[in-house]
Amino acid sequence: MSNLRSDVSDWWTTEIIDMVPGQIRFRGHPIQDLIGNVTFPQMIWLMTRGALPTDAQSKLLECALVAAVDHGPQAPSIATARMAVTCGLGLNGAMASAVNMLDDVHGGAGEQAVELYSWIDDAVQGGQDLAAATAEMIDLWQSKHTKFVPGFGHRFHKPEDPRAPRLLGLVDEAAKNGVVSGRFAEIGRSLQTTLNSRKGKAVPMNIDGATAVIYAELGFAGPLARGLFCLSRSVGVIAHAWEQMEQGGRNKGPTPPAYRWSYKGPNPI
Amino acid sequence: MSNLRSDVSDWWTTEIIDMVPGQIRFRGHPIQDLIGNVTFPQMIWLMTRGALPTDAQSKLLECALVAAVDHGPQAPSIATARMAVTCGLGLNGAMASAVNMLDDVHGGAGEQAVELYSWIDDAVQGGQDLAAATAEMIDLWQSKHTKFVPGFGHRFHKPEDPRAPRLLGLVDEAAKNGVVSGRFAEIGRSLQTTLNSRKGKAVPMNIDGATAVIYAELGFAGPLARGLFCLSRSVGVIAHAWEQMEQGGRNKGPTPPAYRWSYKGPNPI
Amino acid sequence: MSNLRSDVSDWWTTEIIDMVPGQIRFRGHPIQDLIGNVTFPQMIWLMTRGALPTDAQSKLLECALVAAVDHGPQAPSIATARMAVTCGLGLNGAMASAVNMLDDVHGGAGEQAVELYSWIDDAVQGGQDLAAATAEMIDLWQSKHTKFVPGFGHRFHKPEDPRAPRLLGLVDEAAKNGVVSGRFAEIGRSLQTTLNSRKGKAVPMNIDGATAVIYAELGFAGPLARGLFCLSRSVGVIAHAWEQMEQGGRNKGPTPPAYRWSYKGPNPI
Amino acid sequence: MSNLRSDVSDWWTTEIIDMVPGQIRFRGHPIQDLIGNVTFPQMIWLMTRGALPTDAQSKLLECALVAAVDHGPQAPSIATARMAVTCGLGLNGAMASAVNMLDDVHGGAGEQAVELYSWIDDAVQGGQDLAAATAEMIDLWQSKHTKFVPGFGHRFHKPEDPRAPRLLGLVDEAAKNGVVSGRFAEIGRSLQTTLNSRKGKAVPMNIDGATAVIYAELGFAGPLARGLFCLSRSVGVIAHAWEQMEQGGRNKGPTPPAYRWSYKGPNPI
Repeated sequence: MSNLRSDVSDWWTTEIIDMVPGQIRFRGHPIQDLIGNVTFPQMIWLMTRGALPTDAQSKLLECALVAAVDHGPQAPSIATARMAVTCGLGLNGAMASAVNMLDDVHGGAGEQAVELYSWIDDAVQGGQDLAAATAEMIDLWQSKHTKFVPGFGHRFHKPEDPRAPRLLGLVDEAAKNGVVSGRFAEIGRSLQTTLNSRKGKAVPMNIDGATAVIYAELGFAGPLARGLFCLSRSVGVIAHAWEQMEQGGRNKGPTPPAYRWSYKGPNPI
Repeated sequence: MSNLRSDVSDWWTTEIIDMVPGQIRFRGHPIQDLIGNVTFPQMIWLMTRGALPTDAQSKLLECALVAAVDHGPQAPSIATARMAVTCGLGLNGAMASAVNMLDDVHGGAGEQAVELYSWIDDAVQGGQDLAAATAEMIDLWQSKHTKFVPGFGHRFHKPEDPRAPRLLGLVDEAAKNGVVSGRFAEIGRSLQTTLNSRKGKAVPMNIDGATAVIYAELGFAGPLARGLFCLSRSVGVIAHAWEQMEQGGRNKGPTPPAYRWSYKGPNPI
Repeated sequence: MSNLRSDVSDWWTTEIIDMVPGQIRFRGHPIQDLIGNVTFPQMIWLMTRGALPTDAQSKLLECALVAAVDHGPQAPSIATARMAVTCGLGLNGAMASAVNMLDDVHGGAGEQAVELYSWIDDAVQGGQDLAAATAEMIDLWQSKHTKFVPGFGHRFHKPEDPRAPRLLGLVDEAAKNGVVSGRFAEIGRSLQTTLNSRKGKAVPMNIDGATAVIYAELGFAGPLARGLFCLSRSVGVIAHAWEQMEQGGRNKGPTPPAYRWSYKGPNPI
Repeated sequence: MSNLRSDVSDWWTTEIIDMVPGQIRFRGHPIQDLIGNVTFPQMIWLMTRGALPTDAQSKLLECALVAAVDHGPQAPSIATARMAVTCGLGLNGAMASAVNMLDDVHGGAGEQAVELYSWIDDAVQGGQDLAAATAEMIDLWQSKHTKFVPGFGHRFHKPEDPRAPRLLGLVDEAAKNGVVSGRFAEIGRSLQTTLNSRKGKAVPMNIDGATAVIYAELGFAGPLARGLFCLSRSVGVIAHAWEQMEQGGRNKGPTPPAYRWSYKGPNPI
């Protein structure tokens, strides 16, 4: 930085990017060396982690990014994006209203699952048996938070979410090749076994649970698991918002206009 | 879809995704066949365009996605993301507040540049000379919109934005290999020449102008150019928001607290 | 401001608020003199316009603010707010995703109507006949923008939006009392007459058209008409989001879960 | 509702609004009876609480709404709004990006303070001494959440936030007149005394603490305290965004362009 330095500059200190007129470096790499030479997932890793990943690490991250792009136009986030463009918003605004909704209940499960997995991993690293640690940490989660165990259960995909076994299989392969340890895949499966047995029926590992295995294996912190889910789902947001733009419509509501709401308050008309 | 079909279902018609319990298809491709087999840029293309790209097309798209991830913590979008996490927002909320700001002035230039390029291309396809078409369409743009020609000029990177020549070089290579026509790279250079000459100084093609060349070469519509810029810049948003989370802070303002604003209204204290 | 003054402070120059430790002034008025002594609409006026309104002006503004709070849970903005809280967002986040959607098509009509009214007013002030100016400016609007004349037409309230005659009646009363000129109520009615006659049926003045009459009569600029509509509608956003919080639900979609979407793409399941 | 009724309508059940073509009722009141007859604060109360307040209740609510409109252009929310309009957003978008940031740390303190006050109130109603209940609940809050006691402490207004004593005085007056019980004003003062004594210096009750006294006295639930704070602060957001629109600027960053950030990462330029 050849610019004026002061407490004002220090207020915006970063290790991510450096710039002078005509030059840009990300994490120390000149931008022109990155363009055309690193993949988009490698760039995502570099920006969020500070150094470039191996090809194998990057490939596994890519699987998680590909898997979570969309779950249909009636997910609240995607529905919002589609309604947004009919209200006059561009794709930036549609993304904003939609991605905002990927909060604790809708998009935070990945972050929470990474946290739960790490509790179990810490216990196992400390010498506890995996099954016992799993049972204990489920109880702890439910007493501390809610009955919902993050990453498991799906109201639509029963008995199995098709994304989970595919992603776990790719983690197994990566573990076999020494890319990751495989510990978090084991933890995920242990949770599955315990929850199935407690419920007496299949409680499928969902997309958040499966991608959280990958994020945990690759060393991503919980908040980044949420962030990368948002990035992945943004692809679906853009695709649906654009499709809606082409379909047209003005002020599209959630149901066809002929259906109105049910009023249950005082003094109905 | 094996579910209840009706006007309610038709209200949310899509060609992007199909689902039954246990199965998900994107544009007709089972999700498990995509995970591990297509890259993230290929998936982005499939979702927004309807079919998979060639490897070479996907690689060129990837260059645009890599190039635009960040321009520093003091861009209004990134500054907002960093402030947002100190207000208590998760990465989804920080992304929302930040990406929203990539509007006409901050993130819409790519969309506008694609539009301007297509005006010139239409004129050239219709038989007009490139230099004449360029001059005419700059005039038309300025009379219809503002004096700002989208995709050109940078208040910081003078005389050249380091991303532009690198990206144009990769388009040239792709054109030589028959991946793209190269027409829009020519149009971009023609704009550059005309603007330099009109201004009597270098008016550097900026990141929006250079990525718009790629988006136009690859056949992306203008609104998608904006959407994909937002997706790319979201990577920087996530990286900076996460760095700020780790740095800490509460209710971080734009300047160090010792600096306050200048009050110029009535009855000052 | 007794603080450090510099170019950094000047970057955030304002005429709205002044502060030193223990003292706050808005537009020159100490905060403790405002609290308990001015109404909320007076405060809104003071903040946006720079000086306090008369009681009568404030009362008329209040009518516009009261009238536009809500139009039901299936407006895209309100539906978004209700879905948002089931995704885990607090009321700030629900407001953000919802208010964002009050863009050109959904919430911008008030701003546009103020602009159209001012075109007609300028023509009339310049000597043109009201009916002729109305006809000319409708044509100009439609050629410059779209066929939709802002502030008129409603797909639900036919033949009349109940809010419009009530608001116009209050403007008439204010005009009779010399609070406003009444010119914009005349312009609104002239638009109504012309549009009814052109369409051969009632084209009801809607809430945007009616509140725009008030905003124009009171001298609010177009962008503020949009902003104040957003403020008013935020009341409905908060009420609905809170009602949904109490109703509960997780990841509420736009339709009951039994209804899925219609897939019209390749290779259906 | 004379429309088609079904499970689709029931999905959007509300007690807030009823409509048929030409008629709108809020909480059972025809809209034309409300416009011109109720104040904006009364309308806010009606919408969020279900019935109209007394004049005295409405006046006290109005004090809280007036008090919290703004705290200067360098609050992260307001700074964001000002930057947003220079990126091309309208006032709806500026409000969205800004209000989103009023999360747990920036705008959630009012909600949290209502919760803390109610803990103390429950203990006192159950027979505990006020001072003891205060001390115990501060400890509980700090062990359950963070060291920050919501509603108290201000990094700028020392030793006193000018809004707090004024608002408490108005609550006292309302209590004397039987409008409210005054219990929460006592609780607020008890917290103040305890915190001052623990810290050995003045820990001023801030705007969140003072408005939370009013919201609690008037029976508003915690989440509504946050929502109404957002509504109030939206006035400042609109005023500042509009002032910035008139000042102009493109892509305004947080500091003057001559100041850049400090880069502390690897391989600096």
